[in-house]
Amino acid sequence: MTTWPDLPPDTGFGPDNLPYGVFSTPGTAPRTGVAIGDAVLDLAAATGDDAHATGSLNAFLARGPRAWSELRARLTAWFTDEAHRGAVEPHLVPRSEVTLHLPVEVADYVDFYSSQHHAENLGRMFRPDSAALTPNWKHLPIGYHGRSGTVQVSGTPVVRPRGQRKAPTEELPTFGPSRRLDIEAEVGFVVGAPSGLGRPVPVRAFPDHVFGVCLVNDWSARDIQAWEYVPLGPFLGKSFLTSVSPWVVPLAALEAARVAPPVRDVPVLPYLDDAGAGSWGLDLTLEVRLNGELVSCPPFGGLYWTAAQQLAHLTVNGASLRTGDLYASGTVSGPGKDQRGSFIELSWGGTEPLTLADGSTRTFLEDGDEVTISATAPGTGGGRISLGEVTGRVEAARAP
Amino acid sequence: MTTWPDLPPDTGFGPDNLPYGVFSTPGTAPRTGVAIGDAVLDLAAATGDDAHATGSLNAFLARGPRAWSELRARLTAWFTDEAHRGAVEPHLVPRSEVTLHLPVEVADYVDFYSSQHHAENLGRMFRPDSAALTPNWKHLPIGYHGRSGTVQVSGTPVVRPRGQRKAPTEELPTFGPSRRLDIEAEVGFVVGAPSGLGRPVPVRAFPDHVFGVCLVNDWSARDIQAWEYVPLGPFLGKSFLTSVSPWVVPLAALEAARVAPPVRDVPVLPYLDDAGAGSWGLDLTLEVRLNGELVSCPPFGGLYWTAAQQLAHLTVNGASLRTGDLYASGTVSGPGKDQRGSFIELSWGGTEPLTLADGSTRTFLEDGDEVTISATAPGTGGGRISLGEVTGRVEAARAP
Repeated sequence: MTTWPDLPPDTGFGPDNLPYGVFSTPGTAPRTGVAIGDAVLDLAAATGDDAHATGSLNAFLARGPRAWSELRARLTAWFTDEAHRGAVEPHLVPRSEVTLHLPVEVADYVDFYSSQHHAENLGRMFRPDSAALTPNWKHLPIGYHGRSGTVQVSGTPVVRPRGQRKAPTEELPTFGPSRRLDIEAEVGFVVGAPSGLGRPVPVRAFPDHVFGVCLVNDWSARDIQAWEYVPLGPFLGKSFLTSVSPWVVPLAALEAARVAPPVRDVPVLPYLDDAGAGSWGLDLTLEVRLNGELVSCPPFGGLYWTAAQQLAHLTVNGASLRTGDLYASGTVSGPGKDQRGSFIELSWGGTEPLTLADGSTRTFLEDGDEVTISATAPGTGGGRISLGEVTGRVEAARAP
Repeated sequence: MTTWPDLPPDTGFGPDNLPYGVFSTPGTAPRTGVAIGDAVLDLAAATGDDAHATGSLNAFLARGPRAWSELRARLTAWFTDEAHRGAVEPHLVPRSEVTLHLPVEVADYVDFYSSQHHAENLGRMFRPDSAALTPNWKHLPIGYHGRSGTVQVSGTPVVRPRGQRKAPTEELPTFGPSRRLDIEAEVGFVVGAPSGLGRPVPVRAFPDHVFGVCLVNDWSARDIQAWEYVPLGPFLGKSFLTSVSPWVVPLAALEAARVAPPVRDVPVLPYLDDAGAGSWGLDLTLEVRLNGELVSCPPFGGLYWTAAQQLAHLTVNGASLRTGDLYASGTVSGPGKDQRGSFIELSWGGTEPLTLADGSTRTFLEDGDEVTISATAPGTGGGRISLGEVTGRVEAARAP
């Protein structure tokens, strides 16, 4: 597709992407925008639709898949037909001039655990005396609820959390700044259309409810987590901050990225059977950079459980969905050492430090470290589309 | 205090209580009300304040403790001084004519696990080969995030959830309606005033942030929970429904209920030390009724961790609070068999069925069963104040 806006080569934000975000310029209120090349289309101004002037995508997302398709078709026409240029061009703002905000008012936040490589790696480290995978792992997509109030947009400072931690060799817990601050490179799914209490959402209805995809860094304090998580799961080791990328890429932009999920070697119960529901594996390549240096390329396409199965599982007990629900894949790790999505895996629990380009080494994150996760996917235009990035810089723990 | 509204004897809703809720009458929008005797004061109409016409308490709660105190003083004056009768009485509505709604738009929902008797009972049943308490239990108030979107008001039908469950004797999980549907009798704490990201709330600041108290029934499907909860905690076994009582009792009404917490036999870290923070043990007596028959009287006063400690723990890593955050105590169980706050404890994992007055027996809940949890506390007027009740009736699982 040819567009009248000039697009940089390999922009990743061509007309086959059109992700949604919330932006502001100095002195103006946050409103909905669509990224195109190096610009943002001010959707509130261009459409005159108040739903795009609320400061979050929720009002638009709540309208459901037909409205999502209609607006996408309209945007495509606007950018590819010169006839619209006069009306649309005044509403383009250079992306370099905007501040990006949290795109979605998050309702409930759920984090899954659907990468077999990640689960096996963590199992070996956290529970060395047991099998790497718990007996339930291949029967259901394990997940848990996180803190939606601390989901923040990319760029939010990562203040090193303080808390209780106890190494296995210590007799008593101590209190202080986390010594094992880590990332989790994940992909998030944003629910648009709600569902009713008591009404499970089948696997095939995934695109009727999920609007799109963002990147998630589920910052984790491994020492706090290890001490607290038995028996009720992670709590303070995760709840201090979860960062998300500012652009939500619609599922419609990921048609060319859909791939078959891996063969499941344990039969699944019918409600998780995705054989007739289309392939919702997604061929996204993540890149994790530490202070600008590429340290890992986790492949998303091989995840054992797809987002469609995760949604079916999440609701099978009758739990309802709300607009703004966010659920994340869990850390994405591939089989290779350079495909691991967390530092606890990359450094194998701190026992095998990474050597960086400048000769320094790293196990867990140090104050001042900046981590950026980005991703691309095959686009329908033949090139690759960008999911943008989620970044955060570690700040020293604050005095009590 | 003498009031001009006629109050039934032992009403529990005298001028020393004054709980807040959200009510409607046929054809009118939900708005804030205050319970007094058998009536509700229409606060939106009586004050003309739009914050009370929003359909949730959040706008008022967000104003913080000074506003809470001021309105309470005003209400006390209104009900005790005959001079206000003419202006106030027209805004009283008989409680028998109102529908009560979810009082708070719930932001994040956290469930703690702070009754030692409950934790020991569950530990013995779920992990018979280990110590009853996990090593962390007396060092920190264990908690986890639940699903805020399925927190509903008392009276919401309890549709039996379906899901995966696997008994230890079974080789593979099966799918179907939960066979071990249970209750958890808890007390909930409602956050009014928010706190900033990265700013822990000390124990002593508990009343600066928490507005009041409600009753919580954290419905639980024990078979689903047992199969899913390792390693990331409860998920679908809890997320189908959490019911709360419609009246939020302000902390100010619980001054006479404050008691010293139990002696902690393991020293706590300074951030959890409540020695100088006043006593936030609360002498509430819960009553659990199954189809009208009293089956348990869990005592809240003896909980090992107080709500003030729970709040300090919840935020010590820098997690922020939002208006509408709800955190619950965890199941309240006392040392006696008739003080257990769940059926899994009352029936000891189903092995010791309860015999009811009509001669029938019960382990877990059956379709048609109705469970009601109520509570009272010493009031400042010398009698007891009521926390109202949270009730729910079990309906059969729905066909897929």
